Amino acid sequence: MRHFISVNQLSESEIFSIMKTAEYYQNNNFQFNRQLFAANLFFEPSTRTKNSFTVAEKKLGLEILDFHSEASSTQKGETLYDTVKTFESIGADLVVIRHEADAWIEELDSKVNVPIINAGAGKKEHPTQCLLDLLTIYQEYNRFKGLKVVIAGDIKHSRVAHSNAMVLKKMGATVYLSAAPGYVDETMDFPYISMDEAAETCDVVMLLRIQHERHDGQLTGTENYLANYGLTKEREKRMRPHAIILHPAPVNRGVEIDSDLVECERSRIFKQMSNGVYIRMAIISKILNEWGIRNETAFEKRKTLAAN
Amino acid sequence: MRHFISVNQLSESEIFSIMKTAEYYQNNNFQFNRQLFAANLFFEPSTRTKNSFTVAEKKLGLEILDFHSEASSTQKGETLYDTVKTFESIGADLVVIRHEADAWIEELDSKVNVPIINAGAGKKEHPTQCLLDLLTIYQEYNRFKGLKVVIAGDIKHSRVAHSNAMVLKKMGATVYLSAAPGYVDETMDFPYISMDEAAETCDVVMLLRIQHERHDGQLTGTENYLANYGLTKEREKRMRPHAIILHPAPVNRGVEIDSDLVECERSRIFKQMSNGVYIRMAIISKILNEWGIRNETAFEKRKTLAAN
Amino acid sequence: MRHFISVNQLSESEIFSIMKTAEYYQNNNFQFNRQLFAANLFFEPSTRTKNSFTVAEKKLGLEILDFHSEASSTQKGETLYDTVKTFESIGADLVVIRHEADAWIEELDSKVNVPIINAGAGKKEHPTQCLLDLLTIYQEYNRFKGLKVVIAGDIKHSRVAHSNAMVLKKMGATVYLSAAPGYVDETMDFPYISMDEAAETCDVVMLLRIQHERHDGQLTGTENYLANYGLTKEREKRMRPHAIILHPAPVNRGVEIDSDLVECERSRIFKQMSNGVYIRMAIISKILNEWGIRNETAFEKRKTLAAN
Repeated sequence: MRHFISVNQLSESEIFSIMKTAEYYQNNNFQFNRQLFAANLFFEPSTRTKNSFTVAEKKLGLEILDFHSEASSTQKGETLYDTVKTFESIGADLVVIRHEADAWIEELDSKVNVPIINAGAGKKEHPTQCLLDLLTIYQEYNRFKGLKVVIAGDIKHSRVAHSNAMVLKKMGATVYLSAAPGYVDETMDFPYISMDEAAETCDVVMLLRIQHERHDGQLTGTENYLANYGLTKEREKRMRPHAIILHPAPVNRGVEIDSDLVECERSRIFKQMSNGVYIRMAIISKILNEWGIRNETAFEKRKTLAAN
Repeated sequence: MRHFISVNQLSESEIFSIMKTAEYYQNNNFQFNRQLFAANLFFEPSTRTKNSFTVAEKKLGLEILDFHSEASSTQKGETLYDTVKTFESIGADLVVIRHEADAWIEELDSKVNVPIINAGAGKKEHPTQCLLDLLTIYQEYNRFKGLKVVIAGDIKHSRVAHSNAMVLKKMGATVYLSAAPGYVDETMDFPYISMDEAAETCDVVMLLRIQHERHDGQLTGTENYLANYGLTKEREKRMRPHAIILHPAPVNRGVEIDSDLVECERSRIFKQMSNGVYIRMAIISKILNEWGIRNETAFEKRKTLAAN
Repeated sequence: MRHFISVNQLSESEIFSIMKTAEYYQNNNFQFNRQLFAANLFFEPSTRTKNSFTVAEKKLGLEILDFHSEASSTQKGETLYDTVKTFESIGADLVVIRHEADAWIEELDSKVNVPIINAGAGKKEHPTQCLLDLLTIYQEYNRFKGLKVVIAGDIKHSRVAHSNAMVLKKMGATVYLSAAPGYVDETMDFPYISMDEAAETCDVVMLLRIQHERHDGQLTGTENYLANYGLTKEREKRMRPHAIILHPAPVNRGVEIDSDLVECERSRIFKQMSNGVYIRMAIISKILNEWGIRNETAFEKRKTLAAN
């Protein structure tokens, strides 16, 4: 794996292996025993993903170069390619990128000599989010085969819907979509169901964020959105006994989900965030290992850290 | 102490204990011997307080998650509560918050499972600033009882006036206020005196910043403010021999204080900043200890650091 | 050396010594064995210089205080002097400053008790950039005497032209300038030549960035700039066999240089960036040593780091 751009790069067994590594990191401390630099290039606002990568990197003992696009030479018109080459030149061992463009990776792929991890590219891919969703589901059911999963909400503008649906299908789950008329994505070949049906039949209700910031703030019919297309308290009561709720956050409380359900018993929303750290540690150590950056004495700890 | 929100939480003896710990840190190195994460959530511009916390945290060996509200999901409308829960979920062991709202703490208090330190909330409280002021006064006089302290300036819009006046009174000092007509706070039950009287009679002249940014930049009568209500060189000459000048900074040079006095012999302004680091170290280690985060071998150092 | 403000402070032998130290750091790890704090105060956007200092500081084992002017008390009108004194007070052992003003250093020089490194002041000086240029040239030719160097581009608004021309002359090189009519600096006493002559005769073609952001975006005659005054592919073909291309970056691809030449065989543009890290390590350790901050056991490593 030269760069980690898409979940489609990963085989089923690689995904299981990453999840296993993530669970290892959940229970064990590990740090690389040499000084390594991770450059986090976030060209879009982010709290969760950026800080999750930061924690993951620091837990692995990496030093961080924290890039702020608003205080950088991108203000002077520097291209993404030149920015990445700059970080490569000054010694980055890893580059993590979130960028609004869909296709930035093509311009970088073969020409940069540092591993890149996609932390959310345009509207298409957010592969570490996808993997943390998979881990959260797997920790619940210990399988994907036979599970019914609905992805519900702003399918059209979502970064995660596309990749999640494909990979969940590959792992053996049956995937449904649910969306308000304006949010339907015609290009996705999965059956659409209503939120009522979704709540009553699915094992996993995976909600998406209404992406205000991607469609100029106008949210068609917000006032009735929750009642018509969101997860109300009434619908939650009709969910299957074991069924769980996922959401990538940030949540629009009262829009795609009733505010009271964010921390209800079925919600795995904050668990997803915790899992995100361990998934990112797994991806980072995997890619660094594949680029030949190994601890000389594998899994020997640089510092003695008490168990978390 | 679950969270540190207000100096009113602290008894007299706790305040003395915190000051003693701060002085310990001034003279000794100490680092927690496990990896701990502090999230610094500053929703308002800050140089002093933010970097003072940063130094305090790094001196204690903590890793820092550096939150920039302008590049975060608060841009997408995320609530403060959800932001704090996010940092709790990804592994923060401590959350430090500066926020413009007065009452954010009520919404967080019992529902978050990570200690919160108030680094300046709205117009009401800035408890670590208050403690560093106390330490600076105590290092000068070795007592509070019998001291005359005037708090002078923009009482009405000040974050520190309210809490400082109350706690100084509790510690035994006699507190006066001095303010231009528009800056008087009618709700505070302390006697107002003129700057002339303040300069001539008080042991501590605690100046406040004119808070341009809190009242839309219009500063009534700035041109004469220094002469009428500020600390001029002429007034400084009439101060008691041992009397000292405090100011939380940033200073408006030539407004609340003559520029030449900022570093005069009586000024403890930059000493306050140094003390701030040690006070914050004391508060952080106190709250982490009370949450059960202790060094297994207390006060054993993770790294051998030469004395500063 | 109290502060490092200008290359003019350095004798010829000091420059050679700094380059030698930089090459030492290129091949060896070294960290100070006590906790030291570097405050990076960047008042202008910067990717390269800021992150280069960050890597240099972290490689030397320093902790970093990362200042963002847009989220700081400079928003409340705090002066640069008071900002620097603040960082001195809270424990900075080193202050690195980039600021738009030409003359900020005079106001700071004798009054601050912490070493300052100039990371780019106004239009006049960028001494670490100058030293990394020198190192890159020296690594190529192993001498300066007898070399012909042209500095080409926006001489008038460049931060590096002034200091680079003077120091290259001091080191023994023959310096030429090349500029479009609007970019000529009449105050510099070096011969101007055309880009055709420059390409054909010089050993080093040192291109400058067209400083859009310094002259209000209007770039006179951009459409023909490359053809008339820039380094085209045609001109590159006529360069001397061993001649090299330098550029401080960020590059305006297609303006001062043909985009295809940025990574051509003659280009040392990304090597300059790598060298920048080691030059900054050399300057930082030199100034810290001169302020008496030494490892008790010199060159003993705080951590065992594998060779890079």
